[in-house]
Amino acid sequence: MKTGYLQFAPVFSDIGANIERISAMLNGCNGADLLVLPELASTGYRFDSREQALSLSQADDGEFVQFLVEQCANHGFHLVAGFNERDGDLLFNSSVLVGPGGVVGKYRKLHLFMDEKDIFEPGNLGLPVFEIGQCKVGMLVCFDWVFPEAWRAMALKGADIICHPSNLVLPFAQQAVPVHTMVNRIFAILCNRTGVEKDLAFTGQSIIANPSGEVLSRAPADLEAISVVEIDIGAAKNKRITPRNDVIADRRTDIY
Amino acid sequence: MKTGYLQFAPVFSDIGANIERISAMLNGCNGADLLVLPELASTGYRFDSREQALSLSQADDGEFVQFLVEQCANHGFHLVAGFNERDGDLLFNSSVLVGPGGVVGKYRKLHLFMDEKDIFEPGNLGLPVFEIGQCKVGMLVCFDWVFPEAWRAMALKGADIICHPSNLVLPFAQQAVPVHTMVNRIFAILCNRTGVEKDLAFTGQSIIANPSGEVLSRAPADLEAISVVEIDIGAAKNKRITPRNDVIADRRTDIY
Repeated sequence: MKTGYLQFAPVFSDIGANIERISAMLNGCNGADLLVLPELASTGYRFDSREQALSLSQADDGEFVQFLVEQCANHGFHLVAGFNERDGDLLFNSSVLVGPGGVVGKYRKLHLFMDEKDIFEPGNLGLPVFEIGQCKVGMLVCFDWVFPEAWRAMALKGADIICHPSNLVLPFAQQAVPVHTMVNRIFAILCNRTGVEKDLAFTGQSIIANPSGEVLSRAPADLEAISVVEIDIGAAKNKRITPRNDVIADRRTDIY
Repeated sequence: MKTGYLQFAPVFSDIGANIERISAMLNGCNGADLLVLPELASTGYRFDSREQALSLSQADDGEFVQFLVEQCANHGFHLVAGFNERDGDLLFNSSVLVGPGGVVGKYRKLHLFMDEKDIFEPGNLGLPVFEIGQCKVGMLVCFDWVFPEAWRAMALKGADIICHPSNLVLPFAQQAVPVHTMVNRIFAILCNRTGVEKDLAFTGQSIIANPSGEVLSRAPADLEAISVVEIDIGAAKNKRITPRNDVIADRRTDIY
């Protein structure tokens, strides 16, 4: 299975420009199976106000998600992308999993970072896991990485790979994600953005991590980057870390 | 607070020799407050059989623990050490926290590694946290590191520092422990052993990690090493990772 990320710098408030940029980058990705874009790839991150974010939001059948569906239909791959989602009067910092046949599933960021709390509602869809072929896909968005419970909950639901659209301004997630994949014996694709918006500089360094905690690909901090890596998704279905130890079965659920 | 580790190579089956070596190393540690020794520091690791392990075991008021108490009384510090514990006919891979006044607390390894399952009983004391002055101390032993639930459970009980006696043969724990401390905003002292026993080569590289996931001290792989580092234990009581985010309070306990 060929998985990867598209690390780029969304243009703030210009959905059309971001669609154009993503479309151009995806033209280099034929043959991939599953690709991840950053958090809020439709609009950029640094809203001045909730009103501004609302004015830039779209429903999950809006222009941005429809564009993703078209790309998947044209290229035959699946995409995960963060977007600024409107649902009635509410906003969510969401991630969508899209395939050639349309939207497969959606996740809404559970743990809001800093002033996102003034803009978005906390996620209300739990931690769903979706199937594409033999692969079970979970999603987290950016700051969710801090919470080991989220990774574990999805591993317990059978997730083989966590797609992790991000707009990270610190480098800690890139250190932590390979450990989350190691202790859960899963894969992760952390797709961070790069560039600067107002007072925020994003840290790039997107990674693909495997069930041994190895980093299979690491993007630079300051540049756009496309990386596609062949992985054996079956490795995530084997939870044995030694011939006599299983990271799931050995848990002491009588204690914690 | 001055905390540290004594990384050394226990002599297999020779409790007297290990007491002598530890005693000599501790003579260089005046002024320390809390020091950690490796797993099974009394006997070494690679037992041929349960019978052999039983013949080398001691109760928690036996010679080895009494030696630790004397050292604490003489030097005025606290020690954490792994030891081969006998309780009636049962064996546990235990860790003991000892101070100048005697034994403060005990932990029995919850998650047994490989053939330890043929020798020791799984721990039956849960994940206790003990107070020494203003500092709350939890203990884990070696392979316990794989389970994020164990770290989280002790953080939720208020542990400021996890003392982690180990006999690691792989280098993964040294990568993971700073992430466990980062996401729980606690300290950890991973004291690994060094040297070779039969078919096993231990990986050393003991570390002290802080609540930001930084490694404050790292021992070499192949040498004995003493390291004592000044830490501000109060940093572990602040769970804020940003002015508006708290790694404990922000958990979505409605979801996981």
